[in-house]
Amino acid sequence: MSRAIHRPPSTVHGPSVVLLSGGVDSTTLLHYVKKTLLADDVYALSVMYGQKHSKELEMAKWQAEAVGISEHKIMDISPFAKLISGSTALTDGDVEVPDMSEMTSEDSDQPVTYVPNRNMLFLSIAAAYAESIGVNSLYYGAQAQDDYGYWDCTIDFIQKINDVLSLNRRNAVTVIAPFVEMSKSEVVKIGLELGVDYDHTWTCYRGGDEPCGTCPSCVERERAFARVSI
Amino acid sequence: MSRAIHRPPSTVHGPSVVLLSGGVDSTTLLHYVKKTLLADDVYALSVMYGQKHSKELEMAKWQAEAVGISEHKIMDISPFAKLISGSTALTDGDVEVPDMSEMTSEDSDQPVTYVPNRNMLFLSIAAAYAESIGVNSLYYGAQAQDDYGYWDCTIDFIQKINDVLSLNRRNAVTVIAPFVEMSKSEVVKIGLELGVDYDHTWTCYRGGDEPCGTCPSCVERERAFARVSI
Repeated sequence: MSRAIHRPPSTVHGPSVVLLSGGVDSTTLLHYVKKTLLADDVYALSVMYGQKHSKELEMAKWQAEAVGISEHKIMDISPFAKLISGSTALTDGDVEVPDMSEMTSEDSDQPVTYVPNRNMLFLSIAAAYAESIGVNSLYYGAQAQDDYGYWDCTIDFIQKINDVLSLNRRNAVTVIAPFVEMSKSEVVKIGLELGVDYDHTWTCYRGGDEPCGTCPSCVERERAFARVSI
Repeated sequence: MSRAIHRPPSTVHGPSVVLLSGGVDSTTLLHYVKKTLLADDVYALSVMYGQKHSKELEMAKWQAEAVGISEHKIMDISPFAKLISGSTALTDGDVEVPDMSEMTSEDSDQPVTYVPNRNMLFLSIAAAYAESIGVNSLYYGAQAQDDYGYWDCTIDFIQKINDVLSLNRRNAVTVIAPFVEMSKSEVVKIGLELGVDYDHTWTCYRGGDEPCGTCPSCVERERAFARVSI
């Protein structure tokens, strides 16, 4: 039987790999795995995939140091942006990141900020890394995405990724997504209780010095914090 | 219903992406997709992942030109070798590639030449590429691996990868592996009938100027050609 993907095993929390972007969800996850699950050894992996800015990665580094983990690896696959150029606003300078207010109902199944197959790619790299260091638990910060949805953040997606990985004949890695059924505000609530410093996270999809405040990611972040403080 | 993964659709062969390493199987596949399936447009993708030598990629380039395809992309994720260093003989200078004669029955489920989760990673990149150019058919040269086995070359593996990709809400890519139930000699037979110039393919796992003739990959290749000529 495969382990429940949204509930980590309740007794033993062995060595773990956390997929860490430096955004709100994965940063909260890093603190959660270290402070709540008390995992023996925590390894974080961040991926440079040619996104428009590297602020998220600076935040990931800061958080990894703040939490104090065994290792933080950064994997550079920047040429990926060129490979898929033109198909997403997140890596291509020619495609504008829309304001949240400009998003239409047509965007609800797959917004312009979607990056083709990015999450399967990230989980594949992270599973390879976990396997190579003999770690079985791979933590992934997907949450319920109340404002717009991505197919590769769903429970179904994670379950099917685990179905693939379970075929491994020696060291089958399992993806665990404790937040997959939570709203972003619930994630933030957990993080605040764990003392996460959210000033050192980055959410904005645009490449400016300061968060724009109007892109879908900024708006979603703001709403989540507003809901928590009510 | 998902399409049979080992049998391409019999009527329409639209634009296709071929995952091309420059070895015997994927090179035969490239010719097969172009000459037998008569796919409209053929796009090939090769991946540099920090393997010990780049001969395979030179062969991939040569074959892509020889066949005359729409585009051949090379994706460089060389830092991957460092990320998984120590866990495989194919990328790590410290781990020796064994002779076929040195392989034991313990190697039969996962030999030292196995690279952690490499094929899921490759298919993730190739599916992202296919999705970004609006192509649904992704051809993968897995064959039945009669001499030793990898979990990520099996029918089960491909079916489960397709289960993941089928969740995509707009452009679900399907992995098709026409050779997955064939022996390598059957693949070679198809290639010879299609006029594939196998002098321009590379198989050896070691990094020498000439194929070593004794590594598992060289031995498997030699046996396949010997069986065809009987």
